[in-house]
Amino acid sequence: MMKNVLENRLVILDHDEFMARLGRVRALMESTGIPSMLVSDNANKYYLTGRVFAGYVYLPLKGEPIFFVKRPVELEGDGVVYIRKPEDMAVTIGLNVTESIGFEFETASYAAIKRLRDIFPTSTPVNASGLLRTARSVKTPVEIEMLRRSGMKHTLVYSRIPGLFRPGMRDIELQVEIERISRLEGCLGQFRISGDTMELHMGNVLAGDNADAPSPYDFAMGGAGSDPSLPVGANGTIIAPGTTVMVDMNGNFDGYMTDMTRVYAPGSEPLAPLALKAHACSIEIHRELCAMMRPGTPCKALWQRAEEIVRDHDLHAYFMGHRQHAGFIGHGVGIEINELPVIAPRSRDIIAEGNVIALEPKFVIPHTGAVGIENTYVVHADSVEYLTTAPEEIVYFEE
Amino acid sequence: MMKNVLENRLVILDHDEFMARLGRVRALMESTGIPSMLVSDNANKYYLTGRVFAGYVYLPLKGEPIFFVKRPVELEGDGVVYIRKPEDMAVTIGLNVTESIGFEFETASYAAIKRLRDIFPTSTPVNASGLLRTARSVKTPVEIEMLRRSGMKHTLVYSRIPGLFRPGMRDIELQVEIERISRLEGCLGQFRISGDTMELHMGNVLAGDNADAPSPYDFAMGGAGSDPSLPVGANGTIIAPGTTVMVDMNGNFDGYMTDMTRVYAPGSEPLAPLALKAHACSIEIHRELCAMMRPGTPCKALWQRAEEIVRDHDLHAYFMGHRQHAGFIGHGVGIEINELPVIAPRSRDIIAEGNVIALEPKFVIPHTGAVGIENTYVVHADSVEYLTTAPEEIVYFEE
Repeated sequence: MMKNVLENRLVILDHDEFMARLGRVRALMESTGIPSMLVSDNANKYYLTGRVFAGYVYLPLKGEPIFFVKRPVELEGDGVVYIRKPEDMAVTIGLNVTESIGFEFETASYAAIKRLRDIFPTSTPVNASGLLRTARSVKTPVEIEMLRRSGMKHTLVYSRIPGLFRPGMRDIELQVEIERISRLEGCLGQFRISGDTMELHMGNVLAGDNADAPSPYDFAMGGAGSDPSLPVGANGTIIAPGTTVMVDMNGNFDGYMTDMTRVYAPGSEPLAPLALKAHACSIEIHRELCAMMRPGTPCKALWQRAEEIVRDHDLHAYFMGHRQHAGFIGHGVGIEINELPVIAPRSRDIIAEGNVIALEPKFVIPHTGAVGIENTYVVHADSVEYLTTAPEEIVYFEE
Repeated sequence: MMKNVLENRLVILDHDEFMARLGRVRALMESTGIPSMLVSDNANKYYLTGRVFAGYVYLPLKGEPIFFVKRPVELEGDGVVYIRKPEDMAVTIGLNVTESIGFEFETASYAAIKRLRDIFPTSTPVNASGLLRTARSVKTPVEIEMLRRSGMKHTLVYSRIPGLFRPGMRDIELQVEIERISRLEGCLGQFRISGDTMELHMGNVLAGDNADAPSPYDFAMGGAGSDPSLPVGANGTIIAPGTTVMVDMNGNFDGYMTDMTRVYAPGSEPLAPLALKAHACSIEIHRELCAMMRPGTPCKALWQRAEEIVRDHDLHAYFMGHRQHAGFIGHGVGIEINELPVIAPRSRDIIAEGNVIALEPKFVIPHTGAVGIENTYVVHADSVEYLTTAPEEIVYFEE
């Protein structure tokens, strides 16, 4: 059931995989003129080494990387240097770095970067966050295989959702039972979101009109939540006949996350025709966009095509929310849930081979709830591969 | 079961409570010479308003606060101003702020603060993170009442742990069942940790020797975890006779968290005398420190007293870990799990009335596992109040 994480080598990745990832990052360092980087973000350290540790990866364009470790004790390997505080790095790297150093401006705190700047006063700090996001947006075959495994477990968990339903159940009760079976299948629970302003516990289960409650977060759908300290998602709504429950739960089974949404409804009462039409429209958008999602396609063209389809069906009032509209219909996934590329009206991203993309064209239908699906796809040269393969139609719960 | 979070007023706090919190913050602004602040951290916005929203609180020392909101739509109240981007704030605040503005240097990203600095180019940015942490370290009666409620539910959940155990169970399986009953009792799941480098899913369940596995995070205890992307906590160890399982699970039921640890063991085999002695020593430390924990006591004196007791019992080799030692035995709790004050050897914090403190003197005994307890206490003028009241002795599971 569990992997061996007691391995003492700092770099857990196979040598070839490690070199492939370093190679991707270094090619971008070269093209953007960044001669060295100091990486501290957990997601980026996990990408570069295969493990999370407290400390930094110092990566020069030329020369060997250095792994500065604060914790845990007992790690070993080439380039491992234990430090007590960031200032200790200057002894190894040298105080008189005159070239620029890349730092993670977008995830490290102002205080943390200020301290690093003071350690290397003669160097020029530059923002390396975008470069690392770009590097991570194209997955290696090893990463794609990890995403496949998450997708398979994710799909297995969703196949068991109908067996969890009981008539009269509240949204939060269904969510807790899904959380339980996910965790027992190995879901790590942690929902890595880049940046620190978006908070969500393991995903979103939205029943009926709660799907229309605006949330403060930049997720595709909202929900009022059960507490003003975490105002998103399930709010205690009973899953009632004639309404839907949309399940968008965490698929992080091995450090790599797939993203999948499916819609369920009590079987005792039919759903409004408008809701059925909108759900079919979401599936149609998936098919159309999958056909377009090839290396070189501009992401904004995908958004435009989705919007065209929605307007053809006269469903734009409900698209991506009703009281509050989300500004995107898809996003890269991997170590974090909000990776590149972004499928949005003004996105400048271009689809590349190796992108792993969650598409989520969704609708909120008043008095019914949310409909539409989300799948995670791998972009190959001539095809897209489905990582989330649960049936796409609305599943009716037996009552 | 659920509170109404559809309330449209931005400030959900009662007027008196709102003024009390503003008053605390403003007194510290005055004493530290910070004439205005721009607050964006979710925990701080929740403290100041009673809700989380996307945007900023602009708080001048004199004059009314302004609430700049990006999302959700439809919030109302005095001082609410909707913005699309941070630059829009300059229209309301004025571009020519010449006094200094406090920003959250320790939680906001470098890029975010840099952007705010560029919006107010004539002002001097200063670090307001410490001031807000200090303000939040002394809880109001309303906050203490919320912590009491969390503590009662937290204690109720722990009382049900013995009923969840089955012989042969793994640590992670027990953790998942505890997660489930916690969530069904209203636990929000979210584990707010200040800073972005510490990650943990709902808490820590440590069985046997896994308690001794070093983790990268600055928690009191480690555990190898089940994946190198999240190397902390349960790792699939079977809860075996003669070993302990330490449960340190999330007590966030209303935006305010209590912290509690208890120890369990299969009842079919006695534990090693050394483990029993260390557990008793932990309880003794709690009693001694509770007697000392009065307004004015230096936190480092608490640490020193704990260390003395440990040395008197000749248990220092096992105190706060064995292969890797934690550097603190207690910490403030509230909206976040790592608040002030910190009970550590070189802490300069002084105990104040209204502090809410989790004490966690723990031991790792080789071949047995972790022992010791954690409780959350409110510091009153002449007493401490227990918020976590589950029985403190090791609980033996029936087999």
